[in-house]
Amino acid sequence: MDGLKSIDELNNAFSKRRDELYGQKNDGKKVFGLFCTFVPTELILAADAIPVGLCGGKEVTIPSAEEDLPRNICPLIKSSYGFKKDKACPYIEASDIIIGETTCDGKKKMFEHMSEMVKLHVMQLPHFRDERSAKLWLEEVRDLKELIEEETGNKITEEKLKEAIDKVNKLRELFYKVYELRRNKISPIKGTDALKLFQMSYLLDINTITGIIENLINELEERVENNEGYSGKRILIAGCPMVAGNTKIPEIVENIGGVVVGEESCTGTRQFENYVEGYSIEDLSSRYFKIPCACTYSNEDRIKRLKELVDEQKADGVIYYTLQNCHTFNIEGALVEKKLKEVGIPIVRIETDYSESDKEQIKTRLEAFLEMI
Amino acid sequence: MDGLKSIDELNNAFSKRRDELYGQKNDGKKVFGLFCTFVPTELILAADAIPVGLCGGKEVTIPSAEEDLPRNICPLIKSSYGFKKDKACPYIEASDIIIGETTCDGKKKMFEHMSEMVKLHVMQLPHFRDERSAKLWLEEVRDLKELIEEETGNKITEEKLKEAIDKVNKLRELFYKVYELRRNKISPIKGTDALKLFQMSYLLDINTITGIIENLINELEERVENNEGYSGKRILIAGCPMVAGNTKIPEIVENIGGVVVGEESCTGTRQFENYVEGYSIEDLSSRYFKIPCACTYSNEDRIKRLKELVDEQKADGVIYYTLQNCHTFNIEGALVEKKLKEVGIPIVRIETDYSESDKEQIKTRLEAFLEMI
Repeated sequence: MDGLKSIDELNNAFSKRRDELYGQKNDGKKVFGLFCTFVPTELILAADAIPVGLCGGKEVTIPSAEEDLPRNICPLIKSSYGFKKDKACPYIEASDIIIGETTCDGKKKMFEHMSEMVKLHVMQLPHFRDERSAKLWLEEVRDLKELIEEETGNKITEEKLKEAIDKVNKLRELFYKVYELRRNKISPIKGTDALKLFQMSYLLDINTITGIIENLINELEERVENNEGYSGKRILIAGCPMVAGNTKIPEIVENIGGVVVGEESCTGTRQFENYVEGYSIEDLSSRYFKIPCACTYSNEDRIKRLKELVDEQKADGVIYYTLQNCHTFNIEGALVEKKLKEVGIPIVRIETDYSESDKEQIKTRLEAFLEMI
Repeated sequence: MDGLKSIDELNNAFSKRRDELYGQKNDGKKVFGLFCTFVPTELILAADAIPVGLCGGKEVTIPSAEEDLPRNICPLIKSSYGFKKDKACPYIEASDIIIGETTCDGKKKMFEHMSEMVKLHVMQLPHFRDERSAKLWLEEVRDLKELIEEETGNKITEEKLKEAIDKVNKLRELFYKVYELRRNKISPIKGTDALKLFQMSYLLDINTITGIIENLINELEERVENNEGYSGKRILIAGCPMVAGNTKIPEIVENIGGVVVGEESCTGTRQFENYVEGYSIEDLSSRYFKIPCACTYSNEDRIKRLKELVDEQKADGVIYYTLQNCHTFNIEGALVEKKLKEVGIPIVRIETDYSESDKEQIKTRLEAFLEMI
């Protein structure tokens, strides 16, 4: 079976992205650097500006972060901070402003350090998902809209917002379609490739990534027709984000004969599930507010959705993936494990960082898990 | 120099507290178990109910907590959870309801587990300290008032609230007075005893602790007159709470000839600084909202106040104390260190848990620190 042409296209687009981004910036477009899937990119697009995800998936920048931050916080936070400190991430360097959010203690407090190096705006994402918190979040989204308008000098008109909402909803629809295709007994795409798709969608221009996924879907449909693809024990990965540079877990899984059929993650379902159900700022705010992240107290919706996902993607088991020292996903993980086991879904919990040192150990555990399910 | 009689009185009152509490409970009073200094105890007192701090300072209950929770979260959270699981804390067992709050990821997510064992109400403490967040917090305080009224069947009248506010303000005033006395060149009280005072004030009846501190102040004033007390390198401990059972750091400091003259902590200044400046629910809410905790983004007020405290208490240096894996205090610690060093205040950062194993190592570091300052 040949490789997917659209994945080559993806890699190609990625290799050009840096220059493209600086080109767009030279043409006067403002760049908004983002850490998290909670920031409504529609507002940025509606102001003719560019949202771009920031680097944070590599071990190499962690040592310089550890000069300022404690060692025992999550590698994603340390890596991100180190990328800024080392000026090693072209997307951070291109950013006119960075938009942070209060999803976890580690990031929240890291921003206090980072704000000494960059222009930074932090959105308050409340802990609860009640009406009072929804109101606060809506005000935060409104503030962001104002800030974007000021920053870009462009008014976010109703028409512009509608256009942006349609555009991002369209991308969500395509991601759903990819997930549907992965439900086939022979999955037409490897998990590592699917993950790259999610990772790149944070970095690439939205039109580019949309085009690539459209092509990909054609290719995948063809494969399904020809019964081509990947079979083996079907794995859903659930938990922390795996940002660009970090494909550790799906790589291990697929090297030992498994196939990843879904990612319940910020680089996965949390990115595309739920559409913006209208064209108002309230509709926009509401969609993001509903993202079922472990930062929420309490988070039954996530567990419910996880069970459905296992079912939809016909997964044989779940790998619950936690970045080291991520308290929220880690503590919730114990609950998730309990609830999934209650309904007979096999689950294994892996806590790891970006280093290579535990790869063999994880491989051994996952081999045992795959054999067992 | 003889020991302080009022500290004997304190120990004596503590040894009787369990039976006294169950006696009050049998008389029909409701007990509200608390984890954190952010919960306005005035509301509980105004409903003729009993606020009581929960156990969480001992290593012994951590192993059973680690059956459910990750190992790499803070010892206070694990210890508290383990105390409930092992039914080992009389105050938790006596509690009709526990009031939690969203001060940190660890606690927030631990509550999801604990709520399967106890009746639990969680207050949403927002991340920010802006007007929007103050409003949300006020609504949370109002909810708590309603909940207490329901739970106790007692109406919190204006008069009752005034009485409770005066009572707690009076206790705060006494704590201030103790701090003032510790400013003397020869501090009339050891840090370990002062810490016990704060710890016990979470556990004892408010009238009892108020009486004891009044007696203590008389004793301390006498000592000051007679130039009796403790001298040596003067240390301010700043950072995480040291709850009952945990006197690790002040003990080490005072064993090597230092004297602790203040605790910038939830078992210290955060407990008594700032009065409730009126008798309305808004005044009450506002006092608690202003507590300068590391859970806040961002927290310049804390650093400012810390510098003042060093000055007021005539401290020679600061020990920044972090419980292991406490992200908020730990990450903020690096900022605090930087800002204090900028103005020439010596500071050493210690991260530790409840075990004995690192005591010698900490002793060596603190000996070097005391010698240096």
